[in-house]
Amino acid sequence: MFELPNAETLYQSLQAQVAEAITRKPEGTVYLVGILSGGAWLAERLHRDLELAGRPGVLNISLYRDDFDRIGLHHQTQPTDIPFPVNGNHLILVDDVLYTGRTIRGALNEIFDYGRPASVQLAVLIDRGGRELPVAASLCATQLEVPEGQNVALQRDGERFFLTLEDAHA
Amino acid sequence: MFELPNAETLYQSLQAQVAEAITRKPEGTVYLVGILSGGAWLAERLHRDLELAGRPGVLNISLYRDDFDRIGLHHQTQPTDIPFPVNGNHLILVDDVLYTGRTIRGALNEIFDYGRPASVQLAVLIDRGGRELPVAASLCATQLEVPEGQNVALQRDGERFFLTLEDAHA
Repeated sequence: MFELPNAETLYQSLQAQVAEAITRKPEGTVYLVGILSGGAWLAERLHRDLELAGRPGVLNISLYRDDFDRIGLHHQTQPTDIPFPVNGNHLILVDDVLYTGRTIRGALNEIFDYGRPASVQLAVLIDRGGRELPVAASLCATQLEVPEGQNVALQRDGERFFLTLEDAHA
Repeated sequence: MFELPNAETLYQSLQAQVAEAITRKPEGTVYLVGILSGGAWLAERLHRDLELAGRPGVLNISLYRDDFDRIGLHHQTQPTDIPFPVNGNHLILVDDVLYTGRTIRGALNEIFDYGRPASVQLAVLIDRGGRELPVAASLCATQLEVPEGQNVALQRDGERFFLTLEDAHA
């Protein structure tokens, strides 16, 4: 029986890694940006727990995915919001699950539409393997083998994170 | 004193890794594409040594780099040439040195202008660290710490590969 890890435990690990990564860059040059929806929740909470200034960015990459023609518009209606200068700054791009890497390619292209960052580090709760593009997360709470045909996704209940396993949509 | 590794030894390792990677995909679905100039030389030789069908692809990513405004047009005049169908196939993207990852982002965008590959794996002779984007090579002959302010580059003398160390251009 496949057992999902505890999302709160994973979050604590990711938070520690992100906190450490921030100390390695000049003060005031690091900004978080989360991919809707799970990554945006994570970025929001990291931003609050690490007491960062301003607001985290939010990316809606529906229109940047290379399979847009196949999956169509998500029900995500929240638009992209980058409330900080991208140019010359260090971004930490946050997502819940890293899988094929196609979402991350779309996210990078969207970020570069706003400016040329000094760097973009990828922070994820779960790396489930199955990469189809040469993408990697330097900050990652765990690697997890997820059964084929299943998707693991971050959910939240108030402030508390948890994970669910669902059939991948056909 | 910093000593450069033997490029021919590294090439043998990369060749073995690429050969193995090809066996993991359905026959006739894998194509090599090399980034000018070192990656194109490597792809060309891998293609010949592994006795692959057709011709390898060549990418000139000068116009896709995000710092095009700063570095200007290279002296590379060879155009991009993708002599195989990208859509639905497995590409192995070849470069000599992986560093910031910006070249690879440009290469991926150029590839996707030709179609939507089933996958792109990155194969490099040297990973010198210093990543500025969340890019990784799944096939890599060696990791090498290169002195700051220096560039390591692949050269060839007839068929024989060798490495040089140069001051990074200002």
